[in-house]
Amino acid sequence: MRRAILDATLQLYLEKGYSGTSTDEVAARSSVSKQTIYRHFSDKDDLVREALQRLIAAAEEQGAEAFDTLAESNDLENDLRAFARQHIFDVIQPDIMQVRRRIISEVERFPDIAKAWYEAAPKRAREKLAECLKGLCERGLLNIADAEIAAEQFNWLILSIPMNRGMFDVDTIEDRSQHADYADAAVDVFLAAYGAAQSPDKSRR
Amino acid sequence: MRRAILDATLQLYLEKGYSGTSTDEVAARSSVSKQTIYRHFSDKDDLVREALQRLIAAAEEQGAEAFDTLAESNDLENDLRAFARQHIFDVIQPDIMQVRRRIISEVERFPDIAKAWYEAAPKRAREKLAECLKGLCERGLLNIADAEIAAEQFNWLILSIPMNRGMFDVDTIEDRSQHADYADAAVDVFLAAYGAAQSPDKSRR
Repeated sequence: MRRAILDATLQLYLEKGYSGTSTDEVAARSSVSKQTIYRHFSDKDDLVREALQRLIAAAEEQGAEAFDTLAESNDLENDLRAFARQHIFDVIQPDIMQVRRRIISEVERFPDIAKAWYEAAPKRAREKLAECLKGLCERGLLNIADAEIAAEQFNWLILSIPMNRGMFDVDTIEDRSQHADYADAAVDVFLAAYGAAQSPDKSRR
Repeated sequence: MRRAILDATLQLYLEKGYSGTSTDEVAARSSVSKQTIYRHFSDKDDLVREALQRLIAAAEEQGAEAFDTLAESNDLENDLRAFARQHIFDVIQPDIMQVRRRIISEVERFPDIAKAWYEAAPKRAREKLAECLKGLCERGLLNIADAEIAAEQFNWLILSIPMNRGMFDVDTIEDRSQHADYADAAVDVFLAAYGAAQSPDKSRR
């Protein structure tokens, strides 16, 4: 029930945007009554936020194993590569990219939805990654002065090329032929900068 | 005249999108006749493309000096830092960010405008940077196996953090307090990976 309601909400939001999404149409598409919707959700805003949150949770769940393996790594280079490949796969997906486009297109009209997405998705993912990198530093496997910046850098080294191309050319989103190369190139640069063999002065200003 | 027409076109495009932009309103806003517009531009598509092209050319002109200095660098670290600071300043601007948002929001309806922007702005800038990096490699100042990938990486190391934050939170675009730190952090990572002291195996897979 809850799942059908949130699926319908996400679909409507992607098609018609925030203002084009109505609880009436969510009710019709998910074949439940409006009363049922209001038993589960306080209003349209709650519906849209929960639908986006569910998408984020699904992506997090997909990536959880590679993330946990990285956090407890005994083979850092290999586990960074696996993480990078999984991360590019999780994020460069048509639905995630479509949500990004939709939120960005409505950022001036609905800034709170955009801020909520940013906090829950990219920002939270990077905070989690920063914690993970700190743990790897404590174990002597990495040498990083500012884990927050390093987490952002690693994230964007992995994602930026296909993400930016995909934002302007939707046809490229499902072309995964170079994703492993991007992931590997990101890991090469990241390890060159922050591998344990590096002097810490290199990453500190 | 031409300038007034293109200013009015850009303003309208940002406000109302591609389908909301009409030559009638461009004529009214720029106080010229429609005949005059059609003497300079073949149709609305031509107008919008030229208006975007003009914005790109202005950003390129702003960054030209730092770019030329980098290409002929005798003090690589310093010139990379100057380039990175200039690049973040040129791109993380309200008008450029607003154009990006507008194009992204209309990518499904007007894919050709989005592809044209991608080719003319980010893609072309990276090709130019890749050529520059190749020249620096030939002079023994950098050690890069794949200059196209390295140019993308350097570009996104510089821009990604403020750009992605700014796409979801417009209020942050004019907060430049951390831009120098992002630029420097990008250069540190880039030089660690591709500085001439590095073994080329590090950057080749």
